Amino acid sequence: MSKESKVIAHTDLQNFIYQVFTKMGCSPQSAQEAAAVLVAADLRGIDSHGVARLAGYVKQWHMQRVNPQPTIQIIHETPSTATLDGDRGLGLVVAQRAMEIAMQKAQQVGSGWVAVQNSGHYGIAGYHAMQALKQDMIGISMTHAASLCAPTFSLEKLLGTNPIAVAVPALEEPPFVADFATTTVAYGKMQILQRKGEKAPLGWAQDEQGWVTDNPHAPKEGGALTPLGSQAEQSSHKGYCLGAIVDILSGVLSGANFGPWVPPFATAGSTQERQPPVGQGTGHFFGAMRIDGFRPAKDFKQAMDLWIRTFKAAPALEGKEVLIPGEPERLAEQIRSVQGIPILAKVVEDLEALAHQFDLALP
Amino acid sequence: MSKESKVIAHTDLQNFIYQVFTKMGCSPQSAQEAAAVLVAADLRGIDSHGVARLAGYVKQWHMQRVNPQPTIQIIHETPSTATLDGDRGLGLVVAQRAMEIAMQKAQQVGSGWVAVQNSGHYGIAGYHAMQALKQDMIGISMTHAASLCAPTFSLEKLLGTNPIAVAVPALEEPPFVADFATTTVAYGKMQILQRKGEKAPLGWAQDEQGWVTDNPHAPKEGGALTPLGSQAEQSSHKGYCLGAIVDILSGVLSGANFGPWVPPFATAGSTQERQPPVGQGTGHFFGAMRIDGFRPAKDFKQAMDLWIRTFKAAPALEGKEVLIPGEPERLAEQIRSVQGIPILAKVVEDLEALAHQFDLALP
Repeated sequence: MSKESKVIAHTDLQNFIYQVFTKMGCSPQSAQEAAAVLVAADLRGIDSHGVARLAGYVKQWHMQRVNPQPTIQIIHETPSTATLDGDRGLGLVVAQRAMEIAMQKAQQVGSGWVAVQNSGHYGIAGYHAMQALKQDMIGISMTHAASLCAPTFSLEKLLGTNPIAVAVPALEEPPFVADFATTTVAYGKMQILQRKGEKAPLGWAQDEQGWVTDNPHAPKEGGALTPLGSQAEQSSHKGYCLGAIVDILSGVLSGANFGPWVPPFATAGSTQERQPPVGQGTGHFFGAMRIDGFRPAKDFKQAMDLWIRTFKAAPALEGKEVLIPGEPERLAEQIRSVQGIPILAKVVEDLEALAHQFDLALP
Repeated sequence: MSKESKVIAHTDLQNFIYQVFTKMGCSPQSAQEAAAVLVAADLRGIDSHGVARLAGYVKQWHMQRVNPQPTIQIIHETPSTATLDGDRGLGLVVAQRAMEIAMQKAQQVGSGWVAVQNSGHYGIAGYHAMQALKQDMIGISMTHAASLCAPTFSLEKLLGTNPIAVAVPALEEPPFVADFATTTVAYGKMQILQRKGEKAPLGWAQDEQGWVTDNPHAPKEGGALTPLGSQAEQSSHKGYCLGAIVDILSGVLSGANFGPWVPPFATAGSTQERQPPVGQGTGHFFGAMRIDGFRPAKDFKQAMDLWIRTFKAAPALEGKEVLIPGEPERLAEQIRSVQGIPILAKVVEDLEALAHQFDLALP
């Protein structure tokens, strides 16, 4: 019998996740950091990347694909660049070390750029990019993922949903935070349609023969997600370029796997890894640029306020408004930090199972 | 009476352009550099950004918006970052100084990032990114442009076609060169349809009320180009994010104008600048990252060969193939460097007028 959905306060949810990661053998600091990324996703309304993934991380650990006590180390560097080996640690944690290094380098020489190999799924891209905001830096975060997307004209899935996030501080206005998959839609949107038994809007996916389809199961039935742009005539080659750039910086530059060799995450269908690998695990890429490496931070942030206010004030389609990147997520966070986080019945089931497995109480 | 179209050898064309820029008062080096960018566009098949724009640069000069002998200087810097003031020079030339500085910084500290203010139209984004290839670097180039694109749900044009280029070296394979507008299509594609009297595919533009239209004149009749993604349901907010990121890095970070204040190029319709300006002229943003700032260059380039071969070998839609970014332009260059560059009748007319004005012989 299916459980009821429920609402959990974000602090309670974070504490539960923390305990699960601790039971997996993570250090208190790592467990805390990992829990913070997952809860940030739930708070910001990106449910597909929050606690819903916790069972997947545990499954990865059972499959011995996650090292709970990794030795994360720099294996190559210059004053403004580095490559980090995540030692098969949780991507959620490895990513935070990488972003810290990027920011340290930015403090020292104006910008820092860190490619990561031997990592795993790192949560929402935006969380990592946003770390730079506290230091008046522009933060950049991207990661490749297991292949679900066919490049323009391809019948084969060669790219993941490969998200990019860019966070930019403002003065009085909230920051600009772009965070988006380079496919037309993230796979999570397809999974929602699958559960509801609804059809997909045209342009989101292609079928086995490469034709447009409204079947939300298509990516798992020989079809694929489309690159941003949807179809060749609407310039899907540009989405393909973007996904490719993310794959090259995250995978080829770091020495991780790339393209169809990127290892799958446990909950995203197949868990088969393409053999033999062409690199070390999953990769990411991070950047941090000090604003005052270019102009005084206050001048920049004042100009960002004007940028944001100008865009927000634009006349819009009836019943709509022009949104600033990051605005919907910030509004979700305002609500959910007070009202709690709604958890779907299916996820409650997973969490009950984890609570049982690790002898914990689900809040 | 309209002139005939003609074919001109690229060396002759480059020499003619060189002479025009010299007559404008550019130094021999500047004229040479500017001519090289324009001819590169024609060679690579990007006709909208080549010699077809020469009359526009001359018009900008007549309007005293171009300083043929600028003092281009760094006004702010750290070891890995800089802001460059282009002193209202030709963007074609200013961009080359900026990319050189980015590469010098990359040689010194692993990466270099240069924001530019007080510049003008810089030609094709890809030309500048590709300069990095010679030094085994990844090159990045982007620029904002006068507003032609409405963000998702907006009725107002606030962003330009804002292209991004990323060039990545390989070993035996030709380099990967992505170079694309962050709108669904560049405005040049609309102009082609306007000349032919054909309708635009749905998704390329919106009308005055923000609805989908097939009118290729729409962006000049109160409508707008759409961001990559085409429509809200196909995630045009992601194209809006991309165009915004380009505008922020090129305009806000550099201290140039931004959004609807970006000055227009002479041939792209209105020449009105929005007053008062909010920054200094037009801006760009460049980056260079040394491959061996992350891993040995040879290892990386071998992996890029495998990446490229894997994507090229993918099964494709009947009659199609999976293209590597930069491949169509490279093939055009192979043909046009031998067979010459076809010039449209309308452009021949412009060139004849320039030849007359400056007492030059058109080849």
